[in-house]
Amino acid sequence: MIAALQQTLHDEFPISLHLEARVVRAQLECVRLAAPLAANRNHKGTAFAGSLNAIATLAAWSWFWLLLDSRRETAQVVVQDSTIHYARPVISDFTATCDAPGMATISQCLAAYRRSGRGRLRLDVEIADAKGTAATFSGRFVAEHFSGGVVVPPPAL
Amino acid sequence: MIAALQQTLHDEFPISLHLEARVVRAQLECVRLAAPLAANRNHKGTAFAGSLNAIATLAAWSWFWLLLDSRRETAQVVVQDSTIHYARPVISDFTATCDAPGMATISQCLAAYRRSGRGRLRLDVEIADAKGTAATFSGRFVAEHFSGGVVVPPPAL
Repeated sequence: MIAALQQTLHDEFPISLHLEARVVRAQLECVRLAAPLAANRNHKGTAFAGSLNAIATLAAWSWFWLLLDSRRETAQVVVQDSTIHYARPVISDFTATCDAPGMATISQCLAAYRRSGRGRLRLDVEIADAKGTAATFSGRFVAEHFSGGVVVPPPAL
Repeated sequence: MIAALQQTLHDEFPISLHLEARVVRAQLECVRLAAPLAANRNHKGTAFAGSLNAIATLAAWSWFWLLLDSRRETAQVVVQDSTIHYARPVISDFTATCDAPGMATISQCLAAYRRSGRGRLRLDVEIADAKGTAATFSGRFVAEHFSGGVVVPPPAL
């Protein structure tokens, strides 16, 4: 599953190649991406905030993709909004880890998706370097039913 | 000033070369970066959210850099946190525009910076494509006095 997700990220988000985002864990319990500092450094020799946000977004997207893939659903996943808090500079190669939300939340999202063609989830991602957690990301993601190039419109939008 | 800021972005954020972020306006009233869809596209052929966030972060950073440069201050600018709302997909080449905050806010920030070596500003960025505004970004940025490789610690941190 690691190889399939890696290929999907490269195919669907070409910039992930420049971010050098690498899938190191791809399970429903947890998705983890890793990235080198060198490709993402800023003027201070620490990681650029924009790279951290992009890789956190990819980690959450990947988790949702994995969930839908495991249910054999053909959906597009998009992000509606996100917030990130940079607690301290990232000083080394780093990871972005998205843990699964609670089972009740997942079930609710999948039920809405099957009913209306659209399911929403808030997903949290932790960014960590050699010294531990350095940034926390939270985003609202939406799965939209995708069939033959047409996204099924939601009942009320 | 456009060329100087462009060079600074390339030197200080190497990933900006891959994002193909280009400075199109660099004035204290407004900083605007432009980027092509092609380099930043996602799986749906629209712009990847992570790229939009990264370029919005660069636009706000650039505005703060410009402010400090105009005051001949030697400071590092870092982002503490940010929120972004993706209202709709970005369907073409796009811009990220950071307008100056109010004069009172700027004066307050500069006074704090001169007093304590640290000045904070909330900066807003609008992302627009051929159809108008598509996403809005807001971030808290901090200028830290920088002298000979040492960031002067703030009084209370």
